[in-house]
Amino acid sequence: MNKSINLAVDCMGSETSLIEILEGLNESALRKENLFFTLFGKSADINQAIENISPLNIRSKVINCDDQILMTDKPTDAMKLKKNSSMQLSIDHVSSEKSQAVLSCGNTGALMAISLLKLRTIASIKRPSIASIWPNIKGESIVLDLGANIKADATSLIDNAILGSALAKVLFNVPEPSIGLLNVGIEEMKGNENVQRASEILTEMSSKKQLNYYGFVEGADISNGKTTVVVTDGFTGNIALKTAEGTAFMVQSYFKKAFKSSIISKLGYFFASLSLRTVRERLDPRVHNCGIFMGLTAPVVKCHGKSDRLGISYAVDIAYSLVQKEVNKKVETILINEI
Amino acid sequence: MNKSINLAVDCMGSETSLIEILEGLNESALRKENLFFTLFGKSADINQAIENISPLNIRSKVINCDDQILMTDKPTDAMKLKKNSSMQLSIDHVSSEKSQAVLSCGNTGALMAISLLKLRTIASIKRPSIASIWPNIKGESIVLDLGANIKADATSLIDNAILGSALAKVLFNVPEPSIGLLNVGIEEMKGNENVQRASEILTEMSSKKQLNYYGFVEGADISNGKTTVVVTDGFTGNIALKTAEGTAFMVQSYFKKAFKSSIISKLGYFFASLSLRTVRERLDPRVHNCGIFMGLTAPVVKCHGKSDRLGISYAVDIAYSLVQKEVNKKVETILINEI
Repeated sequence: MNKSINLAVDCMGSETSLIEILEGLNESALRKENLFFTLFGKSADINQAIENISPLNIRSKVINCDDQILMTDKPTDAMKLKKNSSMQLSIDHVSSEKSQAVLSCGNTGALMAISLLKLRTIASIKRPSIASIWPNIKGESIVLDLGANIKADATSLIDNAILGSALAKVLFNVPEPSIGLLNVGIEEMKGNENVQRASEILTEMSSKKQLNYYGFVEGADISNGKTTVVVTDGFTGNIALKTAEGTAFMVQSYFKKAFKSSIISKLGYFFASLSLRTVRERLDPRVHNCGIFMGLTAPVVKCHGKSDRLGISYAVDIAYSLVQKEVNKKVETILINEI
Repeated sequence: MNKSINLAVDCMGSETSLIEILEGLNESALRKENLFFTLFGKSADINQAIENISPLNIRSKVINCDDQILMTDKPTDAMKLKKNSSMQLSIDHVSSEKSQAVLSCGNTGALMAISLLKLRTIASIKRPSIASIWPNIKGESIVLDLGANIKADATSLIDNAILGSALAKVLFNVPEPSIGLLNVGIEEMKGNENVQRASEILTEMSSKKQLNYYGFVEGADISNGKTTVVVTDGFTGNIALKTAEGTAFMVQSYFKKAFKSSIISKLGYFFASLSLRTVRERLDPRVHNCGIFMGLTAPVVKCHGKSDRLGISYAVDIAYSLVQKEVNKKVETILINEI
């Protein structure tokens, strides 16, 4: 039997209801028999809600928390003032090695600040970044940073390239993932000083075979799947991510409307509904856009703010893979030995 | 009869073929009987191609140019070394008031540099920016800057807000267009120093009724249509635009594939094809994403690099409106009197 994997789950402080969180965890528990949970939240509520959710009820421990970090809390305040919140205690559980990864739907800034303080960064990494797995025409790619590091200098971009490449290597099982640096054009002279400098360094590292740098890529290349990893700063990455989410939603609305134009087209829509469901799920940010905090000593996964059970179980599966494939340890090894 | 409107058209240096450009101009000429063109390019080629394109052939003058600016030319080189290129001569035609607007599918950086030198900026505007009309769920909005100004400080963001608001006022006929500032979150404390500072100034200007500032918006709010104008720096804006283009293309590919899953769904797709054509056109960047250079003394419109006749005629219609509605003059009046 596989070694058991334990996740610390922050069950408070998000727009996702407790029942959706628990149902989501259960879906993953049904798929992975060696998966166990420690749930942080109001124990009375959790115990009542979990009673009929099986096998989650027999594979969870509940730790009572009276305090929660709100979406509106400032990260620094949340860190200093809410030491007994469900978020802080779930991260403590990982830093004391009682669990192997943290899952939260809560305040991203607070989750980042507390994780950074308690789990610390690996090797030469100064600040963690947020990576996500994006769908593209060919399959999937890793995009980072999606909002951890607003002030981007060349060093952070290089760190992101190293982290993204290491993540793709382990998660996608690709020996030398190609890395694109997001810019306003693909010509060498394009872009600001940071991307120019980062591109020079990445070219040098590529020539030493430390990583596989493709060069500059443009916004459209994310969904084209031109490279396996797309690197950018947290400001641009966050805006690109949310613009893509909004666009996908808008295009789907247009399509739905177009198919209401005649009875036959409505019928066609009905008959395509199974395939369309897959399309919708593939594009639904609540399902697919969980954020993987990269560069820390242990995996931290942040679900989309408006996740439902599907999104939660997707995020749990990611956290499970990160632990099972020992991604953080392998990333550290790559950082120390190859760079 | 309406006063005649003259456009200077750069017919060289792009991926769009001469015949597509001419057919596109002709489509607009058919719609607007007071529209005339001066065409800059190889006169032998143009005269031969235009012979059977009516009414364009009787409403155009051709000015021969042997030199063209290539997509790969550096803007500064193009400006200094290619004084007799079709692009430079078409801009000269407007600066000497023989035409009222320029249209080009060529090198964006060169077009910006030469326009800035020869047409100059209005009032307090230091650098022009590139605006575009984006489709959203409710209708359309103005987004800028899409790549003119890579280094964004608070002043450029304010300029963009003023220019975008003035453009929306005139083009959409909205008295007080709402302005959103693109950021990584909507909370006051979010984002970098530039957006923070710009937001403070815009709030102050809004309280003096100089413009209608909504506050921070996120990437998804562009296609939600939360505000009429969305302001950002040229680096982020360009990446957001291209990410949206790529995403729209990807979602459409997924849909097409889903509708191939059964005969009935194929039939439904066929019966929805008229409505779907409208959707495709609405989303096609070659049709809708022309760039309007804002902040200059005369309108300059840059067609998408891979435009076809539809895209060209859409861009001509925009240039026509900008001239007819005297947008540049009105923007200058707003800048001098209201700000």
